[in-house]
Amino acid sequence: MIEYRNLRVALLGAGSVGAQVASLLQKHGDELAQRSGAGLELVGVAVRDVDAPRTADIPRDLLTTDAEGLIVGADIVIELMGGLEPARSYILKALSSGADVITANKALLATHGPELFEAAEQVGAQLYYEAAVAAAIPIIRPLRDSLAGDRIKRIMGIVNGTTNFILDRMDTSGDSLESALATATELGYAEADPTADIEGYDAAQKAAILASLAFHTTVPIDRVYREGITKVTAAQVDAARAAGYVVKLLAIAERVTDRESGTEGVSARVYPALVPRSHPLAAVHGAKNAVFIEAEAAGDLMFYGAGAGGIETASAVLGDLVSAARRHVIGGPGVAESTHADLPVFPISSVTTRYQISLRVVDQPGVLAAIATLFSEHSVSIETVEQSVVGPDPVTGETEGAPGATLVIGTHEASEADLSATVLAIDASGVVSSVTSVLRVEGSE
Amino acid sequence: MIEYRNLRVALLGAGSVGAQVASLLQKHGDELAQRSGAGLELVGVAVRDVDAPRTADIPRDLLTTDAEGLIVGADIVIELMGGLEPARSYILKALSSGADVITANKALLATHGPELFEAAEQVGAQLYYEAAVAAAIPIIRPLRDSLAGDRIKRIMGIVNGTTNFILDRMDTSGDSLESALATATELGYAEADPTADIEGYDAAQKAAILASLAFHTTVPIDRVYREGITKVTAAQVDAARAAGYVVKLLAIAERVTDRESGTEGVSARVYPALVPRSHPLAAVHGAKNAVFIEAEAAGDLMFYGAGAGGIETASAVLGDLVSAARRHVIGGPGVAESTHADLPVFPISSVTTRYQISLRVVDQPGVLAAIATLFSEHSVSIETVEQSVVGPDPVTGETEGAPGATLVIGTHEASEADLSATVLAIDASGVVSSVTSVLRVEGSE
Repeated sequence: MIEYRNLRVALLGAGSVGAQVASLLQKHGDELAQRSGAGLELVGVAVRDVDAPRTADIPRDLLTTDAEGLIVGADIVIELMGGLEPARSYILKALSSGADVITANKALLATHGPELFEAAEQVGAQLYYEAAVAAAIPIIRPLRDSLAGDRIKRIMGIVNGTTNFILDRMDTSGDSLESALATATELGYAEADPTADIEGYDAAQKAAILASLAFHTTVPIDRVYREGITKVTAAQVDAARAAGYVVKLLAIAERVTDRESGTEGVSARVYPALVPRSHPLAAVHGAKNAVFIEAEAAGDLMFYGAGAGGIETASAVLGDLVSAARRHVIGGPGVAESTHADLPVFPISSVTTRYQISLRVVDQPGVLAAIATLFSEHSVSIETVEQSVVGPDPVTGETEGAPGATLVIGTHEASEADLSATVLAIDASGVVSSVTSVLRVEGSE
Repeated sequence: MIEYRNLRVALLGAGSVGAQVASLLQKHGDELAQRSGAGLELVGVAVRDVDAPRTADIPRDLLTTDAEGLIVGADIVIELMGGLEPARSYILKALSSGADVITANKALLATHGPELFEAAEQVGAQLYYEAAVAAAIPIIRPLRDSLAGDRIKRIMGIVNGTTNFILDRMDTSGDSLESALATATELGYAEADPTADIEGYDAAQKAAILASLAFHTTVPIDRVYREGITKVTAAQVDAARAAGYVVKLLAIAERVTDRESGTEGVSARVYPALVPRSHPLAAVHGAKNAVFIEAEAAGDLMFYGAGAGGIETASAVLGDLVSAARRHVIGGPGVAESTHADLPVFPISSVTTRYQISLRVVDQPGVLAAIATLFSEHSVSIETVEQSVVGPDPVTGETEGAPGATLVIGTHEASEADLSATVLAIDASGVVSSVTSVLRVEGSE
């Protein structure tokens, strides 16, 4: 029997993830000790109310409401409370006392990441957060370590399971957004208040974390452009399918060059986009997550798996726990957060993408020429035009005002600024009845 | 300008990967130094002939034939020569002098891994080998670190690009194996002597490495069961497609329980198998690689990307280089190879899988009953039977001997031993004209 040094592990929070961490730690303690080279002693679990009913099998005497007392003397603190405060204060307290900290708190990292990393670096402690993005899918370590010798060009992630479930459901069943959301709620894929998911806030936090890590640059959450899925219609999803696309909510982190200044910078953004059916991200169904990475040398990579769930997230937390324990055994300071590149973070207007725009027009001579002129005047180059003469609008299903036609225009890469100006000009021109859909196209065939 | 400590990097080999490593190291040296916290000085490149023509832009005065001299005094040695010797001796020499070693040499690791890891551990050095499996796809670090807190149940990898290209080509074009191999050779996906790829030797080496890592157990290459793709016919691929499957060469590492003794152990094996079209591995096309992992807590994960190529593999090597440099800066011993579980490695006869067996029979009463009895006598349980009466054999295309029928029998999980005995008994029974195809089925729908 090998005698290990014992490390004191404090757990803050006993929700769905915390309960699983406590349970797995007890169940596989010996195995984890062998892998870590250190015993992992769960010294306490801080909760709001020790008498609250809980499904997890946590020994009653480990529960405490005194989080601060628990942190003192812990070698490793696992923060799974969520929210900004008191999580932030607790983590700062733990780091300042030299403990390594493991967190799954994406909101906190996206908001106060630099402060926390700075605090860790000052005492040579380490902040681990594999569970904060895409739960069980290893993505933080691959970006920080495996791809450390490469240059990331772009990351496109399906990092929110709720919205992927909803969009996938709309795609496979033809459901409306409302109906797909109701199903997601019923099956437990959406929370009672789904705002953070469907408005893209959750995905934006993850985009900030991924962009910071990939580009060695601090990307604050308020610099992430964000559109949720609430405006996505069943008709758009149907039209996308017919055209060989699928609508996915993407978190994108991209190395971009500003067209005017030539400056290199970073764009982080979240929006529903058309993805070609042949792209690996198109095959990510249900509540699954996937992160697609385009790197200069490595080429295209994809990481796929469960993006949520108590036990799945606990897997990532325990992986971090083994890493933290190994570091304690080996000694030496943690790896500091790398922000050396310090690239400027560009607004959405600097980004160029392809677009697909659907217009409802009156079917009369000269309309296409007039529209093409408006695109050309705003430097947006048209790649494809499809016109369906007469009949209901393929996007809205509307048949009023016929005889009319629908034009679906695909553009080459154009800047957001130019595209917005084009759409405004078209709207104001009186040439079209309505602009029925504007969606970006991401990912090559 | 930050002054970094300088680390001396020696490169052994300047083939397609080595040349890219040298080139990227020169191109992105400053960036890599910032990420590593140390300058990375390429002090020399050992080659067989300094005057040989080479495409890489390596300064002439870095080239040397004196590998041993180069190793002396290097902080980090990158071995990209391939082959067992002298690569093994050079790596042992480097480790014994305290240098960290990075290698992409899967044959060497699968054959002499334990000796090399032992040598590293004795001096506290580290052996990095992210590039040895699936090139640019981060898989070693995710298994060793990210999933260190989880229990791996099974790994199924498409880890050989050549055979995946060939099987994908057969699937999409209906080509014969010979024709698809010819195309692969023409396009540079297969080597002049494709034996290592098509006979599964390359995949078997990777299976040994993955199994060792995932199960904390030394799995020697000679304990890996191996079948190549040379017996896969166009008719089998067509029949698979018709039945909703695709044929893939899989490297499988699995935690198994021996049915008789109840002992837990490991199985590592390589063979062409039927994979349901709905499985994520079925969508891995061309020469791409992917590793699918089933973990107890994390659930299903998949890692996808380029499994070969000079620059892609160089990405993994440089990731290891940054890790090695960070370790030199931080100090402390490397993470030792973990073989604590030391599980028994079971032969293929202990493995249970599902099977699909195609039989050519004379269409007369009682045949199915006779065959079903033979299955039952050998404890193999039938899940599905499909009979196509009269007409050409769907697998061989053969029409002679008609009127006949083809039976396609899908089994529940059965042991290799029982299945082999069943097939032998059927062959000997005189009830069937021929057993036209026996393929294992892997991966759930």
